[in-house]
Amino acid sequence: MSDLKTAALEYHAQPRPGKLSVELTKPTVTARDLSLAYSPGVAEPVREIARDPELAFQYTGKGNLVAVISDGTAILGLGNLGPLASKPVMEGKGVLFKRFAGVDVFDIEVDAESPQAFIDTVKRISITFGGINLEDIKAPECFEIERALIEQCDIPVFHDDQHGTAIVTAAGMLNALEIAGKKLEEAKIVCLGAGAAAISCMKLLVSIGARVENISMVDRKGVIHAGRDDLNQYKAVFASETDKRTLDDALEGADVFVGLSGANLLSAEGLARMAPNPVVFACSNPDPEIKPELAHATRNDVIMATGRSDYPNQVNNVLGFPFIFRGALDVRATRINEEMKIAAAYALHDLAKQPVPKEVCEAYNVTHLEFGREYIIPKPMDPRLITVVSDAVAKAALETGVATLPYPKHYPLQSVEDVFKG
Amino acid sequence: MSDLKTAALEYHAQPRPGKLSVELTKPTVTARDLSLAYSPGVAEPVREIARDPELAFQYTGKGNLVAVISDGTAILGLGNLGPLASKPVMEGKGVLFKRFAGVDVFDIEVDAESPQAFIDTVKRISITFGGINLEDIKAPECFEIERALIEQCDIPVFHDDQHGTAIVTAAGMLNALEIAGKKLEEAKIVCLGAGAAAISCMKLLVSIGARVENISMVDRKGVIHAGRDDLNQYKAVFASETDKRTLDDALEGADVFVGLSGANLLSAEGLARMAPNPVVFACSNPDPEIKPELAHATRNDVIMATGRSDYPNQVNNVLGFPFIFRGALDVRATRINEEMKIAAAYALHDLAKQPVPKEVCEAYNVTHLEFGREYIIPKPMDPRLITVVSDAVAKAALETGVATLPYPKHYPLQSVEDVFKG
Repeated sequence: MSDLKTAALEYHAQPRPGKLSVELTKPTVTARDLSLAYSPGVAEPVREIARDPELAFQYTGKGNLVAVISDGTAILGLGNLGPLASKPVMEGKGVLFKRFAGVDVFDIEVDAESPQAFIDTVKRISITFGGINLEDIKAPECFEIERALIEQCDIPVFHDDQHGTAIVTAAGMLNALEIAGKKLEEAKIVCLGAGAAAISCMKLLVSIGARVENISMVDRKGVIHAGRDDLNQYKAVFASETDKRTLDDALEGADVFVGLSGANLLSAEGLARMAPNPVVFACSNPDPEIKPELAHATRNDVIMATGRSDYPNQVNNVLGFPFIFRGALDVRATRINEEMKIAAAYALHDLAKQPVPKEVCEAYNVTHLEFGREYIIPKPMDPRLITVVSDAVAKAALETGVATLPYPKHYPLQSVEDVFKG
Repeated sequence: MSDLKTAALEYHAQPRPGKLSVELTKPTVTARDLSLAYSPGVAEPVREIARDPELAFQYTGKGNLVAVISDGTAILGLGNLGPLASKPVMEGKGVLFKRFAGVDVFDIEVDAESPQAFIDTVKRISITFGGINLEDIKAPECFEIERALIEQCDIPVFHDDQHGTAIVTAAGMLNALEIAGKKLEEAKIVCLGAGAAAISCMKLLVSIGARVENISMVDRKGVIHAGRDDLNQYKAVFASETDKRTLDDALEGADVFVGLSGANLLSAEGLARMAPNPVVFACSNPDPEIKPELAHATRNDVIMATGRSDYPNQVNNVLGFPFIFRGALDVRATRINEEMKIAAAYALHDLAKQPVPKEVCEAYNVTHLEFGREYIIPKPMDPRLITVVSDAVAKAALETGVATLPYPKHYPLQSVEDVFKG
């Protein structure tokens, strides 16, 4: 076994299985404590909530509780391995939600016979939670699932593989292009992959300035073009009049490569075809479309990002979802709308240009981090993320009328601990 | 507001809403930690579980995770207040599961349009968990729901309002009758209430010796007798040839009263009609069928138990479910069968006769506890429960062939901490 494999399996198994536990937040030592936590005292909050459902946020954990829900049909870049196999990933999301934003997570793996069965199931359990993070659900089913659940639930529903990826990619892309001396409006973009993340990323890039006619989306059958008759409605948006047919055709002179394909598919030859100062986001996990070592060996002008924590420029959803939900929960937003997503992207984009605190460098064992080719996006362990991203999202929710609570007195947060100080 | 109401609402609201949080059990400080907990390391346990589903117990929290699930149709003794209002109770069960047996709980409130929708929903999310505790679901729907889920799930499914109540009631009843100088086989029993708990209690009493013809079950319309044409199949089991029609008719000369009615319905006059040394289990929560103060003022030979923690003889499910699931999870039982339930009842019954450790007396602010009228059943905070009840359940599972793991090396447990020592 590789060192990583051995270490990862031991991490998950020892000293006890898994990564999460459920703990008590109130005293439960005396008989009196128990008479408040359970019978007879618990009848009081029950009666109050029956009288006024909003009081569930006052007397239960609902308001800080997010469900991370998957059917296991598109796990990481590994594919459809089923709901049970997705559990380590969903528990891992729970780890990140808690570690970075103090959000409690129940991971729920759903064995559903159809998208409608999945929708029905999630809808019926949704009152348990303050928000729903959909995860690792394959396209195109994920689009309809998310649409239906947003419509049917009165809490935020967010498919992180789509929007989390899009938000973080957009933030990094704006900075990478700036360093490359290029404009998003003019950039020729190749997107390898046409799944949920890819389509959502390209849509967000278009909504902040990219031109749809400059985007070449490539799926298993090659470039998506107007002559193809096998495209679903989501891919068809990106079909253009072009004579390019292969990934190599598309890469010729391209400014940007975004890899969301789930496989190691960008060759050195392909990278060599790109324009000067190419921006390469090889985002598939665990195996990026091209290894950073190979990319840098191939050409020294590449601006490279991956989804992994063990290379520079980690374009990873962890920069988004904990803080997006934190902001949404704290103003009790009824949904996470486009304005909130774009606010999160620009908050990340701006933060990368700020001087980096020493503690962040120490966390990554580097002496210095400064905006540039090796630092186009904040590091996940940057403690300022909870301040700037959550704040931006909460403000956007308030400005667009989807917040149901006022701006919290303790905002902007300075740390996870602030969440519970109130 | 009453003192209890004020204290209970404050307990639930301050310093943060609810009673549970989700916490991390593994280090998440360094970038290396995160590369194991999430990308890229998390792909390793995913691949392993995809290869062998049993490994979910090794690499995720599934094996120590119980879902406490309700539709809120029969909350405590309060009735059908809906799923959201049940959340404080379900979180409270989570508190007790963790506090007494180290079991992690996700509470799930289900807003289902039909029993079949509830069944489908729970079935689809069941792979997330190592066991399912159904809670506060009204009769008769609960019987069909439990039956279907036991059949469809490969993990233990246990409707605690039925079986937990029955197990603890049976344990206390055997001891109370012994103190009263009576035999279960001859006891005339009045059961007020004909819901899930009542039917399950009477069935368990019959299976350990009570005679069905000695039982008078009383519902809202009076005594359940063979002349009634409004009985569902579950109540009909207890319909006998009798000319008794009212609760007062049934109480005349009765040895035992079991109250599972959800209301304050046993009057002093009714109690006065019972035989000498009457055994009164007024189990409804939060309001027992008769207040202990009134019962003792009415006659001084009564042997009295309630479901509440603030009176002696708490016949409360908390004596059962944490340890029943602990035993079942630790030998990875595929179900909780009748033998396991009866083993739990006899373990509780035996433990009440053992000398009580000083620490238990201290926890309840009493100088002495000894088997007798004021101590017919162990106290919930007795640390020996996890030893004797979990052990009895695990052994019964092994003996009846529903265990899939051998007797754990660390059994019998001595404390909650032992659970994670392995």
